[in-house]
Amino acid sequence: MNDTDFGLADLPLRDDLRGQTPYGAPQLSVDAALNTNENPYPPSPQLAEEIGSAVAEAAAGLNRYPDRDALQLRADLARYLDHGLDRDQVWAANGSNEVLQQILQAFGGPGRKAMGFEPSYSMHPILARGTGTQWVPVPRTAEFAIDVEAAHSAIAVHQPSVVFLTSPNNPTGTALPLETIEEVARIAPGVVVVDEAYAEFRREGTPSALTLLPSHPRLIVTRTMSKAFALAGARLGYLAAHSATVDALQLVRLPYHLSAVTQAVAITALAHADELLGAVKRLRAERDGLVDWLRGHGFAAADSDANFVLFGRFDDRAAVFQGLLEHGVLVREVGPPQWLRVTVGTPEEMTAFRRALLDVTGRS
Amino acid sequence: MNDTDFGLADLPLRDDLRGQTPYGAPQLSVDAALNTNENPYPPSPQLAEEIGSAVAEAAAGLNRYPDRDALQLRADLARYLDHGLDRDQVWAANGSNEVLQQILQAFGGPGRKAMGFEPSYSMHPILARGTGTQWVPVPRTAEFAIDVEAAHSAIAVHQPSVVFLTSPNNPTGTALPLETIEEVARIAPGVVVVDEAYAEFRREGTPSALTLLPSHPRLIVTRTMSKAFALAGARLGYLAAHSATVDALQLVRLPYHLSAVTQAVAITALAHADELLGAVKRLRAERDGLVDWLRGHGFAAADSDANFVLFGRFDDRAAVFQGLLEHGVLVREVGPPQWLRVTVGTPEEMTAFRRALLDVTGRS
Repeated sequence: MNDTDFGLADLPLRDDLRGQTPYGAPQLSVDAALNTNENPYPPSPQLAEEIGSAVAEAAAGLNRYPDRDALQLRADLARYLDHGLDRDQVWAANGSNEVLQQILQAFGGPGRKAMGFEPSYSMHPILARGTGTQWVPVPRTAEFAIDVEAAHSAIAVHQPSVVFLTSPNNPTGTALPLETIEEVARIAPGVVVVDEAYAEFRREGTPSALTLLPSHPRLIVTRTMSKAFALAGARLGYLAAHSATVDALQLVRLPYHLSAVTQAVAITALAHADELLGAVKRLRAERDGLVDWLRGHGFAAADSDANFVLFGRFDDRAAVFQGLLEHGVLVREVGPPQWLRVTVGTPEEMTAFRRALLDVTGRS
Repeated sequence: MNDTDFGLADLPLRDDLRGQTPYGAPQLSVDAALNTNENPYPPSPQLAEEIGSAVAEAAAGLNRYPDRDALQLRADLARYLDHGLDRDQVWAANGSNEVLQQILQAFGGPGRKAMGFEPSYSMHPILARGTGTQWVPVPRTAEFAIDVEAAHSAIAVHQPSVVFLTSPNNPTGTALPLETIEEVARIAPGVVVVDEAYAEFRREGTPSALTLLPSHPRLIVTRTMSKAFALAGARLGYLAAHSATVDALQLVRLPYHLSAVTQAVAITALAHADELLGAVKRLRAERDGLVDWLRGHGFAAADSDANFVLFGRFDDRAAVFQGLLEHGVLVREVGPPQWLRVTVGTPEEMTAFRRALLDVTGRS
């Protein structure tokens, strides 16, 4: 059926998609995959069995549609988040990308703008484009912080329906002071999304925007089970917000978007949150050690509240990326020029990374 | 956090969503849930266990992202569909709703039109609206067929980027002759989607549009595992098309949209397709018997190639719906006025339906 004379150019592809390539890091088989900020510690064999049992139970009724509103899962997520939240203030979808897409479907769209502070998570502008929302990037400072004055001016000029904040920010690892979030929430005319995908990795004393929800009804805090919960393969993103925001998202979600299986897996994982989050402390210590090591060896390393570190600077970062890959260490060529991002893995993986980096850069 | 003075009106909801309510049939607990075209026969206990085991195995690696391209699943789906298809011509997502949304994201959008022949699946216009695509409805004939002349004129006038056909059609059960699909594919300037969610239930001799794929590269045939495969809870929709169409969809899919768990569940189910599809023959016989019974008792019933029957006519269909519900039988108030739709369930459920219908309408 694939006559070779027919191709993408013969299809009515949207103009803004022409010439694009699919988003995504290379999925390569390497010794140390430190490129997608995965948690290196898998669920225990016992927990994997328990997840299987929960799914076997759900499978006995798979001929029926799932609970469209995922009530139990949302109640369990609310309990995990604490902060006085209940299930009406929590929403979940297939990964935080779907959560963010739903936010843009409800509050963005043609004739509207979404704003972000770059460098930041590269899916935000992609999701904006996919929903016909104009993307307005505002640059961060040299220290990857958000300049409140600059934010103030940009918001005043553009009046964005959606503002994306990130704390900690990907790919820089930078957390935001609550004062910045509050100030943006105060001046933004629409919703303000604080993407806290990496929140559980933040350093002692770094606050979560969850504390601001009671006083800021247009604030949305997004989370994921992909990182600290070590469940990237399960695809479960969620958010906390005013219940009116959850009502709005129900107008754009696909019916039955969250499978009975996904709900069962996530509910089981939440019941074992202590185990799954058990590695977070180790990963934070490993990260802090990595930042010290990098700086001690003459590299630049951004402060990080996440499970990755942005490091540099390299006149030819592509060469360093390739050199590391030849040593079996896969990092991510992302973010500002001259910098690379490395995920915090196991001690063995970080040893391999450090050795490879010294070898590739000729430092010691 | 939920101050009662704050509500949807205080959020920057898109104008076209104001006043809308979320899509979805009521999820009520009744004796006979015959409202969402589910397959009444669940997977066997043995298969449920096997699905659980497959997920337990996948769970051991859930800290990693899933195969973003779902290569094994797509190969297995291609093998199931047969027709000489291979995995590059197959795409999968979380339910056929997500597949259809991706098609509209790639080929629809602002300034473009999608066309359907109504009454038909009510999600098509909802998905069009959600992607900013103008919806153009064209009426079917009194027999719920597509008038090729009317289609010809409408396509000539509107030049839709996407045309939705349905075979069998929901909620009428009507299958399309291949000649109609071929003629629409010949004159449509963009892609033509044949939604075959209920294809496995079609009567002997009713063709599938899969046979047209080799000669019609802009044709897309969508399927689901929710109906004949009895896996509504697993959320797995898929399509077959030219590989260039699959390339286009990869530009709009969310990265890692299909979880490792969903992939494992669907792969396991496909390995047991014979068992899961085992009830299809029984359901077809039950459906044909139901159509005969309805007509024999003076009701109208549309010809059906699906696992449901559109029946009527009632001056007050809401009263009939309510009367049936009071007998514990939940049907769907959908489609043309004076008609109701009933899913084909177990023999016991259909007995309950028949008794209730006679009682509510005072016939015998």
